[in-house]
Amino acid sequence: MVGDQHGDAAGMIVLCTDFGLEGPYTGQVKAVLARAAPAVPVVDLFADLPPFRPQGAGYLLAAYGAVFMPGDVILTVVDPGVGGARAALALEADGRWYVGPDNGIFELVLRRAQAPRCWRIDWRPAALSATFHGRDLFAPVAAALALGEAPRGKEGPPTRHPGWPDDLAEIVYVDRYGNAMTGMRAAILPAGTELEVAGARIPRARTFSDVPPGALLWYANANGLAEIAANGASAAATLGLAPGAGVAVHPPG
Amino acid sequence: MVGDQHGDAAGMIVLCTDFGLEGPYTGQVKAVLARAAPAVPVVDLFADLPPFRPQGAGYLLAAYGAVFMPGDVILTVVDPGVGGARAALALEADGRWYVGPDNGIFELVLRRAQAPRCWRIDWRPAALSATFHGRDLFAPVAAALALGEAPRGKEGPPTRHPGWPDDLAEIVYVDRYGNAMTGMRAAILPAGTELEVAGARIPRARTFSDVPPGALLWYANANGLAEIAANGASAAATLGLAPGAGVAVHPPG
Amino acid sequence: MVGDQHGDAAGMIVLCTDFGLEGPYTGQVKAVLARAAPAVPVVDLFADLPPFRPQGAGYLLAAYGAVFMPGDVILTVVDPGVGGARAALALEADGRWYVGPDNGIFELVLRRAQAPRCWRIDWRPAALSATFHGRDLFAPVAAALALGEAPRGKEGPPTRHPGWPDDLAEIVYVDRYGNAMTGMRAAILPAGTELEVAGARIPRARTFSDVPPGALLWYANANGLAEIAANGASAAATLGLAPGAGVAVHPPG
Repeated sequence: MVGDQHGDAAGMIVLCTDFGLEGPYTGQVKAVLARAAPAVPVVDLFADLPPFRPQGAGYLLAAYGAVFMPGDVILTVVDPGVGGARAALALEADGRWYVGPDNGIFELVLRRAQAPRCWRIDWRPAALSATFHGRDLFAPVAAALALGEAPRGKEGPPTRHPGWPDDLAEIVYVDRYGNAMTGMRAAILPAGTELEVAGARIPRARTFSDVPPGALLWYANANGLAEIAANGASAAATLGLAPGAGVAVHPPG
Repeated sequence: MVGDQHGDAAGMIVLCTDFGLEGPYTGQVKAVLARAAPAVPVVDLFADLPPFRPQGAGYLLAAYGAVFMPGDVILTVVDPGVGGARAALALEADGRWYVGPDNGIFELVLRRAQAPRCWRIDWRPAALSATFHGRDLFAPVAAALALGEAPRGKEGPPTRHPGWPDDLAEIVYVDRYGNAMTGMRAAILPAGTELEVAGARIPRARTFSDVPPGALLWYANANGLAEIAANGASAAATLGLAPGAGVAVHPPG
Repeated sequence: MVGDQHGDAAGMIVLCTDFGLEGPYTGQVKAVLARAAPAVPVVDLFADLPPFRPQGAGYLLAAYGAVFMPGDVILTVVDPGVGGARAALALEADGRWYVGPDNGIFELVLRRAQAPRCWRIDWRPAALSATFHGRDLFAPVAAALALGEAPRGKEGPPTRHPGWPDDLAEIVYVDRYGNAMTGMRAAILPAGTELEVAGARIPRARTFSDVPPGALLWYANANGLAEIAANGASAAATLGLAPGAGVAVHPPG
């Protein structure tokens, strides 16, 4: 869990979106939350999830959501189908709440949780825009959950994606250092495994400074995913990596 | 208004600037606000307004400020003339407060408001830098307004820009999805209107998924502006759009 | 000091990092702080310090940290050696607290402070990742200091860098306007000094609008550093500037 100390905060709302922070989307979501649940802290976990890619976001969410605590509400929006036929969901998984679109973004959270429950949100606000359900629909639902209200809908199953792997051998996110996260949990990869991406075969290390300056490494990142980096340099720039790039796994031996 | 629920918050301070969030400008503004008005929520609406373009920002502000509530204070800074002769203003428009430079950024807010009032700020802090009035001048003024104080100056008229159109047929902002907002309210455009930009003639739709993957559309965005996008792709990258690009309007024929 | 008014806030935690805001790093740090010290305001001063460059960050920190107040805690992380042998530090300098890695980032703060004190942090959390001490180690230490606890370690000297100059004639940061900050305090440069960078010799002015549109200038920025800019344009794009570029100083005469 994030934080050794447990303070006064009863729970927080965690934003995981592709909205960006500098443009008008996250700010309008926070204005709704500040009006509806002014005492609840709001934390920006991801605002730069790769747009149009709910599958990759699902692997990130399963790894990063896990550090939050029971009672926290994780508002998750990568929603290229906004305003179309896709349903809106509220999930309870291992004590945490998740709110967002029914497009696969919760597939891995559901798969790894103990006895998750799911509601299809049928509440609608007085004014619902066609393209910004984050503000109009998901934020009020998240605020209500953070305040202890019941989900605004009927319990019912989400759309499942049984064909998706448990771990995705693909780049799902590139951070500002040029580190490239895969959708694979490091713990499933045997000692001595090498990862291959963009023609480079990369050994495992514990941290950046364990390899020479400029050298590539992969490591178990601080949230458990296998991540490709370079010591003091950008692996993404060196290798030309972007979300969606495939990764090959070479077990030892 | 943003938010169906009215909570405990009496008002908030809304930041609309070109300061960015990651560099030192917004943080220093927030430090001033946290000291002067620690109980007032602060929301980042825009931190990436296109620099050096107060006119375009004025059309955004008129559309996006309108979702905030009476008593909210909108601190608005796109201020290439900082430290020069331009005045500093506080406006009251439809119950909301606006604070910022007298360079046209409030022209459209003033034009659309019922009986707006304007004060020229003559208060000066003990130390006033030449290049960061956002921190030194506008933030203390905004905090004081949020706390219910009177504007720190004398009522007097702003500089007006009668030659500016009521709606600007130009790209005023490009978001991180590559959606390109115009300075035109969608409500003024008749059904069947097509927009032309960078040689492409673009039909209207309700939301992204109403057109084929990759296809262009324009739509009424969640704040009422006509916005150009592509379904699951970046319209700005496809068409090479940036703030300032002209838009032609083709009414139905 | 930032803010003429002194409000109710007893102190704040100020984040100076290369973590970015949109990715998962700052959010996880703030989640730790929100749990451990929920009543303490948190301000993002820098989230885009140039990665891998603790020296340049040190000159920025000495200039920008100085606007904060006694009791404030400045959490400072540019830490390419994370997980390696470098120590973790807590400093008290002119009444402010600083927390971060022992890699030179505090060298200039130490050099300019009156009787600073330094502690080597020997506390370790139950779970310490190899690559994210910002979340696991520095954030809990900063929260504890903000709550008035003693530093979690023994008093002892930091590693010093006597060869570093008191002012660095180099670009240390480029902001989103394309303004390029140097590591030199403007106050040490005599009137009439010109700065030369990337082949351009640049005169001093007070603010942007004191030179013709598009023209280059350098000026004392709002935090006291000598900064290179253009009026209404990007100096960094015009000159091709990035952190690390050298600056030549031409005194008058």
